[in-house]
Amino acid sequence: MSSARSVFFISDRTGITAETLGQSLLTQFPLDCLPISLPFTDSPQAVDDAITRIEAAGEASGERPIVFSTIIDAGLRNRLRRVNAVVFDFFDTFIAPLESELGMESSHTIGRSHGMADPGAYNLRIDAMNYALSADDGGVVRHYEQADVVLVGVSRSGKTPTCIYLALHYGIFAANYPLTDDDLLSGRLPEVLRPHRHHLYALTIRPERLAQIRAERRPNSRYASLRQCQYETARAEGLYHQEKLPWSDTTTMSIEELAATIIQTCKLPRRLY
Amino acid sequence: MSSARSVFFISDRTGITAETLGQSLLTQFPLDCLPISLPFTDSPQAVDDAITRIEAAGEASGERPIVFSTIIDAGLRNRLRRVNAVVFDFFDTFIAPLESELGMESSHTIGRSHGMADPGAYNLRIDAMNYALSADDGGVVRHYEQADVVLVGVSRSGKTPTCIYLALHYGIFAANYPLTDDDLLSGRLPEVLRPHRHHLYALTIRPERLAQIRAERRPNSRYASLRQCQYETARAEGLYHQEKLPWSDTTTMSIEELAATIIQTCKLPRRLY
Repeated sequence: MSSARSVFFISDRTGITAETLGQSLLTQFPLDCLPISLPFTDSPQAVDDAITRIEAAGEASGERPIVFSTIIDAGLRNRLRRVNAVVFDFFDTFIAPLESELGMESSHTIGRSHGMADPGAYNLRIDAMNYALSADDGGVVRHYEQADVVLVGVSRSGKTPTCIYLALHYGIFAANYPLTDDDLLSGRLPEVLRPHRHHLYALTIRPERLAQIRAERRPNSRYASLRQCQYETARAEGLYHQEKLPWSDTTTMSIEELAATIIQTCKLPRRLY
Repeated sequence: MSSARSVFFISDRTGITAETLGQSLLTQFPLDCLPISLPFTDSPQAVDDAITRIEAAGEASGERPIVFSTIIDAGLRNRLRRVNAVVFDFFDTFIAPLESELGMESSHTIGRSHGMADPGAYNLRIDAMNYALSADDGGVVRHYEQADVVLVGVSRSGKTPTCIYLALHYGIFAANYPLTDDDLLSGRLPEVLRPHRHHLYALTIRPERLAQIRAERRPNSRYASLRQCQYETARAEGLYHQEKLPWSDTTTMSIEELAATIIQTCKLPRRLY
C-alpha cells in the first residue's frame, strides 16, 4: 500500500501537454503523487492496455487514480471513458466551445502540437542552439553582434542552461560572457561588451548556493570556497549596479522562469511558438 | 486589417503551460493565428493592461481575440473575466472538480509549475546537460558507462539537440556517437560502442534534408553534397539493420517527438516530472 496517489498522463502523442497541464494543476494541492506517463497511446489496444494499467494502480493503492488525457482521436477518447478512474479530458473540455467560437470543426486528428516538425522552425531552433554552444564560456568572445541577448555572470551562475533553453524553446540567439578575475577586479564593464550593452542581461546567485554547485565540480578548491564565491558575487553585483544592467538572482528560479523573465525584460523577439 | 486571429496566452507565471495547452488545441483548427504571450500578469494593474491590449487587438482585427489563461489567483481571474474576448480559463475549469475529487482545497497561490526550482531537480538537469555537452561530438569518446542512452548517427542527423532536450526536460544522461567514415566503411558497430549496445539508439534522416542542413554549414562542400549524404545515410541504415539497433528517421519529427519515442523504446528512467 502506497500513500501516494497515482496520476497518469495519457496522450496519443508525446504526452508533454498532458504532463505540463496536469502538473500545473497538481501544484495547487498538497498531494503526494506517483506520476506515470503513457505517451503514444494511439490505438484501441494501447488504450485497453492503459486502462488495465491504470486500474491495477487503483486497486493496489485503494484510491481511484487521476488521469489527465490529451488524446485527440474521438474514438479513443470514448474508449478511455470506461476506465475506473477520475479522468480530466482536455480535448472534450475545450474543443467543443472552441469549435463553436471559431465556427469550424476541429480536425480531430493527431496534429502537430509543439509545431517543431516544420523545417523552418527546426532549423531556427538548431541554429539558435548551435549559436548558444559556440558562443559558450571559455573566453572565446565572438559573434556577439548576432546575439539577441548576452548573459553576463560569474562561472556557474546559470548562463549556459539558460542560453540553451532560450534557443530550444524560443529560437532566441543567446550568447554568454563569463566574468573573469580581471573584470571583477577592474569593476568596469569589459571592453568587448561595451558595444552590446543594450543587449546585456546579468545573472547573480547566492554565494552559499554557488559554493555548493562549484564544489560538485571541484571539491575543496579555492574556486568552490564560500569566501571566493562571496567575493565574486559581491563584485559582480557591484558591477551590475554601477553599469545599471538588468539582472536576476538565479538561486531559486527555474530555468523556465529565468528565460521568461529575460524575454520580458529585454523585450526579446520571440521566434517560436 | 489582419486576417489572422489574435490569440493571447496569459499567465501569472511564465506562460509556458498556457502556451502549450492553447497551441495544442489550436493545431486542431486550420486557423491563421497571431500569438501573443503575456507572462507574469500578476497584479490588478497588469491584468488591466492585458485587458487593454487584448481589446485593442480585437478592435484592430474586427474579431474577438481568443485568450488562454492559466492565472491562478482567484481575484485576478475574476478581474480578467471582464475582457471582451473569448476566455478559456484553465484553472476555473479544472480546479473545482479536482478539489471535490481530492477532498481538499487548492492553495490558489502561484505555485511551482515546472517544479524546477528545487535544488535537486535543478542540479539533475544541469548535470545531465553538462554530460550531454561534454559527451558531444568531436570524436571524444568517454563516460559512455554513465549514459542512459547513446545516440548514434551521421553528422547533423539530430543527435546533439536531442541529447540536450533529453537532459533538460527529463534529466536523462544521453551521450552521442557520430559515425565516422571508417565506421561507415567497415559496416560494423564501432568497438567502443559494443559494451553499450543495449543502450544505443540510432538516428537517420533523408539524404535530401541532410544535404540541405549541411549546406547551411558548409555550402558547396563534398560534405554537403547529395551524393555524400546518400552514401552516408544508406551505409548507416545498413549498419542499424544489421546490428538490429532501434532507430528513428528524424526528417519530419520534432525534437519532442523524438525524445519521447526514445524514452519509450529504450524504457529510459525518467528523472524529472
